[in-house]
Amino acid sequence: MVASEALPDLETPAAGDPVFALHEGGKMAIAATVPLHGADELSLAYTPGVAKVCEAIAADPGLSDEYTWVPNTVAVVTDGTAVLGLGDIGPRAAMPVMEGKAILFKQFSGVDAIPICLDTTDADEIVETVARLAPSFGGINLEDISAPRCFDIEDRLKQRLDIPVFHDDQHGTAVVVLAALENAIRLTGKYHDTIRVVVSGAGAAGVAVTRILLAAGIQDIAVVDRAGVLHRDREDLNPVKRALAADTADTTGRWGSLDAVLDGADVFIGLSGGTVPEHAVASMGPDPIIFGLANPTPEVHPDVARKYSRVVATGRSDFPNQINNVLAFPGIFRGAFDVRASAITEGMKLAAANALADLVGEDLREDLIIPSPFDPRVGPAVAGAVAEAARRDGVARR
Amino acid sequence: MVASEALPDLETPAAGDPVFALHEGGKMAIAATVPLHGADELSLAYTPGVAKVCEAIAADPGLSDEYTWVPNTVAVVTDGTAVLGLGDIGPRAAMPVMEGKAILFKQFSGVDAIPICLDTTDADEIVETVARLAPSFGGINLEDISAPRCFDIEDRLKQRLDIPVFHDDQHGTAVVVLAALENAIRLTGKYHDTIRVVVSGAGAAGVAVTRILLAAGIQDIAVVDRAGVLHRDREDLNPVKRALAADTADTTGRWGSLDAVLDGADVFIGLSGGTVPEHAVASMGPDPIIFGLANPTPEVHPDVARKYSRVVATGRSDFPNQINNVLAFPGIFRGAFDVRASAITEGMKLAAANALADLVGEDLREDLIIPSPFDPRVGPAVAGAVAEAARRDGVARR
Repeated sequence: MVASEALPDLETPAAGDPVFALHEGGKMAIAATVPLHGADELSLAYTPGVAKVCEAIAADPGLSDEYTWVPNTVAVVTDGTAVLGLGDIGPRAAMPVMEGKAILFKQFSGVDAIPICLDTTDADEIVETVARLAPSFGGINLEDISAPRCFDIEDRLKQRLDIPVFHDDQHGTAVVVLAALENAIRLTGKYHDTIRVVVSGAGAAGVAVTRILLAAGIQDIAVVDRAGVLHRDREDLNPVKRALAADTADTTGRWGSLDAVLDGADVFIGLSGGTVPEHAVASMGPDPIIFGLANPTPEVHPDVARKYSRVVATGRSDFPNQINNVLAFPGIFRGAFDVRASAITEGMKLAAANALADLVGEDLREDLIIPSPFDPRVGPAVAGAVAEAARRDGVARR
Repeated sequence: MVASEALPDLETPAAGDPVFALHEGGKMAIAATVPLHGADELSLAYTPGVAKVCEAIAADPGLSDEYTWVPNTVAVVTDGTAVLGLGDIGPRAAMPVMEGKAILFKQFSGVDAIPICLDTTDADEIVETVARLAPSFGGINLEDISAPRCFDIEDRLKQRLDIPVFHDDQHGTAVVVLAALENAIRLTGKYHDTIRVVVSGAGAAGVAVTRILLAAGIQDIAVVDRAGVLHRDREDLNPVKRALAADTADTTGRWGSLDAVLDGADVFIGLSGGTVPEHAVASMGPDPIIFGLANPTPEVHPDVARKYSRVVATGRSDFPNQINNVLAFPGIFRGAFDVRASAITEGMKLAAANALADLVGEDLREDLIIPSPFDPRVGPAVAGAVAEAARRDGVARR
């Protein structure tokens, strides 16, 4: 069971690899934020003193927000079915990603996050389990749950719970893509209501990106999966894809293959992991915007994309314009928690995207359409915009 | 919903009270144990580097013990039905106790602990929920779940999971009571096989204390609930009490009221919260041992107990000989985790009790039968004994 016993040390994956060395013993810990050094301190933080706080919360449940860590704590929940590009690797193998996510929450926004890797992939069981955990958390970040189950699970939890429920693979990605696209549109002088966008991929990210682009006023979008553009005559679509088709190609009439819809398009957003042939990239309209976001291999390699486009983004940190969810999720939960929001609304996501886009400000140029995750203004700017939008949307509780 | 808005500050429970002041914002936080200050560090702890660790664990699940925080992390799980002496106050009001427990785990043994307060009191649902959470944790500490459901829940989880499952209200209490009683027996020159013990209370603690005393070789025990001694002719007993009767009064034939069985008894252990009349205390045998462990009001007040007994213990920190679970649970989980134990056996609990008792050593006297929780030797001594017992019992995995 334990690798260090089963294998000699030199043969473990750790040998000489800085990634494994860093992961020894995991990446996180808990800490007390109150002193516990003697009997007097113990009697305040634990019995008998603590009983008074319990009684106060029993009498007025809202006091939980004042006297526990709950309102600052998010559960990072996965079933391990769609982890990074690795697919269904199960809950145990997903843990390093969830720990990473948890410490990014803490580092970038002070949110306490707990990784929860579930030993079930059944949507009903996931919903029931998370709903039962809810009193322990101020919010739920769903992570790396495969489509289309992720849509149903998120929808049902949002219905059931009065705390933020947010599937980051969908909405975190959507927020950052929209922010980058807004700045790309500014740079290239295009217009929301006339640009033609092609979204490649109709999984969690593809669906959410398309939805947020529609909410931002972009009207001509073709969403492409492996069988081509989603449209009403296809009989292989799940309900989520069918609904998406109705709001995209069904209204524009632009049907066909990826190659066909790229011809003359203004924007390509790759969220699929496939590869777009260079001739298709070359067929795009003037001054195209190309986001190849698959990791580690973008759908259009930046070197190819730059031959045709001034504005290129990827998911990689070793090229300019990295579309990185860490720009969004910490600030979104920070803002939601700051006002005790009961949900994360479309308005809050749009506000987060706008705040991110605006941060670039006068520095805007082709290789700087989105801030760096390490720009210290990012978290506070996103949080502030999200909190304000929560008030505007009537979901703030303070 | 939020108290600070609903009520002016001066009217909240916080005003001037050090307990509420200490609880502002909760008592715990998470922390990263790896650096995250720039893109290079991010790419080791998160994408793309983390993918390698995920793949390694997917190929060899045992590596989870090396490269995640799981093997050092315990879930502190409650449904809020039996919190301290407050009873069924629900999961939200239970959180301050669970946070307190979590930071005691960290403080006294370095175990990372996560409070999980469940929004269900259904035994089946609790079992299912905890089983689904199991990949995220190295052990499960059940806490403040009411009897008799707690017995069934613990039994079923132990059957299902291959990690330690430990209901602290039962076994933590039992370990510390046994440790104190062993030293009290030494001091008074009594014998395990001849002493007569009365346990008042047949809830979680009463059942587990009786079981560990039997395991330690004590043979004459009467367990008393509100209706008197548990015995085979009573028709109001649940299966747990019925089984306990079979191993106690059914074999000794000592039936009757609390007063009746106290007459001539050597040991009283109060775990019920009732009050024992002084005449009954006075009727006990020579040199009796009196543990009144109800909090904050012991079943026999120490001032009364001392009139008849040389060896008196309570659950309170303001009297000598405090029976405090924090002496046991941190070291028990530390020891179990150190050897990746798949369970916590009877042998491990007995070993913990013996280690605690032995720590007093030559300092043993009437008002020092159990170490202080702040004695730095406690955690390591318990952990060492528990780890050794785990190996002996064949449940150690390294």
